[in-house]
Amino acid sequence: MTSKTNAGYFFEDYRVGQILRHATPRTVTQGDVAMYQALYGPRFAMHSSTEFASPGAVIQIPKLDDLITFHTVFGKTVPDISLNAVANLGYAEGRFLERIEAGDTISATSEVIGLKENSNGKTGIVWVRTTGIVHSDIPVLEYVRWVMVRKRDAAAPAPTPVVPDLAKVVPADALHIPEDLDWSAYDFALAGEPHRHGDYTVGEIIDHVDGVTLTDPEHMMATRLWQNTAKVHFDVTARPDGKRLIYGGHIISLARALSFNGLANAQLLAAINAGAHANPAMAGDTIRAWSEVLDTAPTSNPHVGALRLRLVATKGEAGALRGEDGKYLPEVLLDLDYWAFLPT
Amino acid sequence: MTSKTNAGYFFEDYRVGQILRHATPRTVTQGDVAMYQALYGPRFAMHSSTEFASPGAVIQIPKLDDLITFHTVFGKTVPDISLNAVANLGYAEGRFLERIEAGDTISATSEVIGLKENSNGKTGIVWVRTTGIVHSDIPVLEYVRWVMVRKRDAAAPAPTPVVPDLAKVVPADALHIPEDLDWSAYDFALAGEPHRHGDYTVGEIIDHVDGVTLTDPEHMMATRLWQNTAKVHFDVTARPDGKRLIYGGHIISLARALSFNGLANAQLLAAINAGAHANPAMAGDTIRAWSEVLDTAPTSNPHVGALRLRLVATKGEAGALRGEDGKYLPEVLLDLDYWAFLPT
Amino acid sequence: MTSKTNAGYFFEDYRVGQILRHATPRTVTQGDVAMYQALYGPRFAMHSSTEFASPGAVIQIPKLDDLITFHTVFGKTVPDISLNAVANLGYAEGRFLERIEAGDTISATSEVIGLKENSNGKTGIVWVRTTGIVHSDIPVLEYVRWVMVRKRDAAAPAPTPVVPDLAKVVPADALHIPEDLDWSAYDFALAGEPHRHGDYTVGEIIDHVDGVTLTDPEHMMATRLWQNTAKVHFDVTARPDGKRLIYGGHIISLARALSFNGLANAQLLAAINAGAHANPAMAGDTIRAWSEVLDTAPTSNPHVGALRLRLVATKGEAGALRGEDGKYLPEVLLDLDYWAFLPT
Repeated sequence: MTSKTNAGYFFEDYRVGQILRHATPRTVTQGDVAMYQALYGPRFAMHSSTEFASPGAVIQIPKLDDLITFHTVFGKTVPDISLNAVANLGYAEGRFLERIEAGDTISATSEVIGLKENSNGKTGIVWVRTTGIVHSDIPVLEYVRWVMVRKRDAAAPAPTPVVPDLAKVVPADALHIPEDLDWSAYDFALAGEPHRHGDYTVGEIIDHVDGVTLTDPEHMMATRLWQNTAKVHFDVTARPDGKRLIYGGHIISLARALSFNGLANAQLLAAINAGAHANPAMAGDTIRAWSEVLDTAPTSNPHVGALRLRLVATKGEAGALRGEDGKYLPEVLLDLDYWAFLPT
Repeated sequence: MTSKTNAGYFFEDYRVGQILRHATPRTVTQGDVAMYQALYGPRFAMHSSTEFASPGAVIQIPKLDDLITFHTVFGKTVPDISLNAVANLGYAEGRFLERIEAGDTISATSEVIGLKENSNGKTGIVWVRTTGIVHSDIPVLEYVRWVMVRKRDAAAPAPTPVVPDLAKVVPADALHIPEDLDWSAYDFALAGEPHRHGDYTVGEIIDHVDGVTLTDPEHMMATRLWQNTAKVHFDVTARPDGKRLIYGGHIISLARALSFNGLANAQLLAAINAGAHANPAMAGDTIRAWSEVLDTAPTSNPHVGALRLRLVATKGEAGALRGEDGKYLPEVLLDLDYWAFLPT
Repeated sequence: MTSKTNAGYFFEDYRVGQILRHATPRTVTQGDVAMYQALYGPRFAMHSSTEFASPGAVIQIPKLDDLITFHTVFGKTVPDISLNAVANLGYAEGRFLERIEAGDTISATSEVIGLKENSNGKTGIVWVRTTGIVHSDIPVLEYVRWVMVRKRDAAAPAPTPVVPDLAKVVPADALHIPEDLDWSAYDFALAGEPHRHGDYTVGEIIDHVDGVTLTDPEHMMATRLWQNTAKVHFDVTARPDGKRLIYGGHIISLARALSFNGLANAQLLAAINAGAHANPAMAGDTIRAWSEVLDTAPTSNPHVGALRLRLVATKGEAGALRGEDGKYLPEVLLDLDYWAFLPT
């Protein structure tokens, strides 16, 4: 037996400043859009209709859903970042930049920006800043992620700790507003709901009502679509309970699609401020979603406003998030803090 | 908790003459065609091969399956018509008009053409005539559907009953024959069967033989593909038996694909005369299909004939439809009366 | 009940020299590529990225995975070759020729090249040489397959036995090297692994490590995508154990995708020398893959080398293939002998 397979990086393989150029760039297509539609059922009109997205233009399909960009970039990073990860700890400073089109080829690089060994000496935390690009040098997404990674050898010396200073929230004036975004004649009836940016108030909670019961084939197909190879998603022998652990991004996309009901005009994602996969999801779980309006801001485009939202995926009640101990309730699966663009 | 979500229309919200402009127009693509292929396995050559569909032309893929048009239009209507529906009661006067191409954006409107409160005072029947269009004003499909809808308030006054007078069958001379349809050099070997229009006789029953056992992930993916949001299809907590109810259109497409075996040359759908989802379908059911030739007619194109067919999806025997009491047998799932075009 | 359905050919229907022109040619698209991605998760860069596959060229998606060609051609043959087959016995002399692009329409013909009745008088072996073509006359794949087929009537006389003389291995100098293949500036980092053609040695065994637990919806969607209609894959009532038998090609594609881990640079399939579906696969089985290097050869392109590989899909240990009796171990599902092209 030879060792040509990729064992992944262990904690002691990372150095602050190291640049990882991720393999298998991926050309995204109309086919990926249809798979995404079948897996989540999104209805946001900017991604559903070319005529809505680009009135008057002759384009074959709309620019792609921002989460397709996110999943594709994330998938690229798995073999280099999280193959030996114990836990996906958090996201920060995520910004959606140029939007992608069918036919674009997405590649990704990551820079190691922080390292800290845990006190048990067996694992450590790795912070990376990842950038997705198309057409060789046009950035489409950047974000920071940190994961807990196993050491290959517990006796390896601990590195000097470097903990990056990350923004709690992407400032509203740092959001990238697509130059070609024209909402001057936005059709609220075709979009599905009448609620404008100004109709949402900070503190408001929206129960998105609908539920979806998860199945194994669907999350596996989603995870493979993004070339995410983490084995716990596919192999029932990889966990003692004989269950497949569902890729956290599957829950993000499902919750986002459910949030249409009440947030139909939150058409575009602008930033990911923070995110926690609070508890694991498994086939058989029935997922609902609710949102909380955290902040609101104008943008430099008078027809576009920014809304900061908390999106929660849960097996329980809308509005419930943490217990008296401050910890996430066991039924909460996802707590995602993001900025979206809505018409004013 | 705020109420920005769409609660759907209740019986007393409809008025005869009301026009509903449905939200989230949808651009259909090559990706949808591949999903449809994976979900049902159709083999009708007019949709399988560009070279068969348009000999000599340089097109990337054939015009899309008529049922893709049907499902997309139907999906658009769900949030406005059947979110609070108790039952989908029937179809009539369905006509397939211009055929759609990949890249077309489908939108839909419905007119309320009938209303009748039920004697229990809790529900009523709503009749709508729905039209799907592309390129702003080209109709691709029209049909009448009626559903039983809950009242929000049992005390709301009953409207003056209006029951539309609907044709039992679309007359053969009202069928829309595609202008670009050229079957002058039709290749029966490549189509898969030798049977021409004239080989079928009224009263003939065809057992399509093959069976498919249904699964939950497949019908959920199908239903989301058409942006159909009815929650009973996705959420096992929505029904007392903990099962997902399968979208009736999933059974239509499955039965149509099975009908290739014996009706391989019934390439195009021309009309839907009537349709009943006789009993609910669930994962684990094994579905077979059989057809009965109900009528035959020439068309204005000498190479094209019309055949009126009954397509039955069943868990039981071919040929069995109703019991001695005149009701559908419990194993019958679908009874669809339609016109198809075949080569002469 | 009429008999317009296709009962398939029985053993006595075949004649040596008979040409079967298979029905329902199929136009393959970007959508099929996305479905393939979702079903298997391949990462070979030549099929993942247009920029990797064709540096500098403006193409929308890369040429399609060779196994998409294989499955599409194979699917065409099922109604004429294996509808009444008891077993799929083997493959030989398979060669991948011109590679297909999205938008190509694939059709297939087969010639019966051998016939031999079994001593039980109830079945016989049929050998066919199948050719897939695009653009009317450009061959994309040819291979020999032999199957055991039922007789309609045990009393039918046995044909004179004709057993074709088949090559054990496609000679290295008969492999078709794509003319447009330019690996002069091959980027091993983007491909995912550093191992060149010359890094592999005959006898070397590679454990591809990862496992996937099979599900029914996935293999059914795969099988329908290729218009393969064999009923044992879809109908739980077709077998006494109430299980669906998984299409052997599903296991080939899954094993090939798993083999990326250790063979990331085995980008293109060149030939299928032999293949056995050693044991049936069912939903719930967890599949792993391992490879053995059987031979190595240069090609006329100095940047391209050929590697002959055994690819084994198994529910058991890497490296284990046959028992002391010389028979495949019960946990072995697939033993595929093929040539691949790698950069030198």
